[in-house]
Amino acid sequence: MGHEFDRTIALTHTDDGYEAELDPGWVVGGGVNGGYLLAVLGNALRETLAGKPDPFSLSAYYLSASTPGPARVTTEIVRDGGSVATARAELSQGDTARITALATYGDLAGLPDDVRTSGQPFEVAPRERCIDAGAHMPEEMRRGVPLMERFDLLLDPASVGWALGTPSGEGEIKGWIRLADGREPDPISLLMFCDALPPTTFDLGLFGWAPTLELTCHVRAVPAPGWLRIRHATTNLAGGMFEEDCESCDAAGRPVAQSRQLARAPRG
Amino acid sequence: MGHEFDRTIALTHTDDGYEAELDPGWVVGGGVNGGYLLAVLGNALRETLAGKPDPFSLSAYYLSASTPGPARVTTEIVRDGGSVATARAELSQGDTARITALATYGDLAGLPDDVRTSGQPFEVAPRERCIDAGAHMPEEMRRGVPLMERFDLLLDPASVGWALGTPSGEGEIKGWIRLADGREPDPISLLMFCDALPPTTFDLGLFGWAPTLELTCHVRAVPAPGWLRIRHATTNLAGGMFEEDCESCDAAGRPVAQSRQLARAPRG
Repeated sequence: MGHEFDRTIALTHTDDGYEAELDPGWVVGGGVNGGYLLAVLGNALRETLAGKPDPFSLSAYYLSASTPGPARVTTEIVRDGGSVATARAELSQGDTARITALATYGDLAGLPDDVRTSGQPFEVAPRERCIDAGAHMPEEMRRGVPLMERFDLLLDPASVGWALGTPSGEGEIKGWIRLADGREPDPISLLMFCDALPPTTFDLGLFGWAPTLELTCHVRAVPAPGWLRIRHATTNLAGGMFEEDCESCDAAGRPVAQSRQLARAPRG
Repeated sequence: MGHEFDRTIALTHTDDGYEAELDPGWVVGGGVNGGYLLAVLGNALRETLAGKPDPFSLSAYYLSASTPGPARVTTEIVRDGGSVATARAELSQGDTARITALATYGDLAGLPDDVRTSGQPFEVAPRERCIDAGAHMPEEMRRGVPLMERFDLLLDPASVGWALGTPSGEGEIKGWIRLADGREPDPISLLMFCDALPPTTFDLGLFGWAPTLELTCHVRAVPAPGWLRIRHATTNLAGGMFEEDCESCDAAGRPVAQSRQLARAPRG
């Protein structure tokens, strides 16, 4: 019943927390996608912080690579006062800590209606001019990246040079994205989308895994149904690390999530 | 002995953590500056994580406003493996939690020398054309903002319209900054600088306190001695909240810190 995405982030209550089953469908390279793990953590925090359903901010520190299979999530409320609540969460497998996180939750639907966005929204080519990332991936590459089956990703033509041997060098990858199972976006799936695109380092000509050290996502509004416009960008690759900013806008053109991560650069 | 900044972030070891004395010189409006508190936390984490002196990433969740006077900092190592270590830290006063934080530390000086920064550095007017923020503040306003005495802040002429009744509406404030006591910048003081400028909401014509919910700072390099170029910017004020990005570049023009915070917008 329901959507695949909800089944793969589902939790079982236990005496001291939650159990999750990390789905092999979210594997990318050697590990489980960090955005999917954020959504699992975010789901556990939503259960813990009843009445404050939405992640305003979630900061995750990645300690070791997760593998498909059972995982445990523990949560602890740090402060629950007024309109927001702050809590800790840990995701572990066996005796090994995978992620430690902090988050502040509240009710996005209860926020005032003022919108004074001053930034220029990023432009993405119309979907009919974009390139279906999954459909163009060679079969042997797809086998190593099952997460590409989880969503529909249409990349802007300006963002696919890396796949053709001509990365732009701008450090930007953008396009349109939605879950492949037909589930509409919500604040929890926005946590996943903020780490779903290929690393921006691909667009700098550096291929390979870019393990996240830290990722903070701010969810700013409940997304409207439909495709999300999404952009990954970096400006500073130095000392073997880079920052990766992700912005997503909903079908109504409203910014709905902003994230930044610090990741290790691939050797390239 | 030494510099004022180091005295105000100094810690005394106790059985279960550290004691700090939050300095009244860092008061702004009704509370203690959040950047100064980050530096106090960052200093405690540096003591805890011996051999890994530098904050690669520090995420702080602000729970309640701090006041001048004694504070307690407790830290706990989550994982210490290889080149980086991750730890929790809490700052409290009496029985009240002020800040809960996560951080990953390492040794910035030990990172590889590769720099492939692809972003365009932000431009700031030469210092001789900038406006000394402290010198132009009316005396009665200065009394409520003693932290303005802690640093020299030269604002770009494009960033001072708000003080003259003509905010640009861009949501950007930039300039040059250094500690007033002559202490050169280092990774710990960069944590303070990332929340030292007036809120970007001033440049949107919204005055008043903008309490931080969450702030994550990535320190990317050991800063060269001298003035820092610094910029605060926001793009999305909505639902009573805004994000505030801070970038700082050292005297050699190298990006040294990037931070983003989620804050509540002043009523304006």
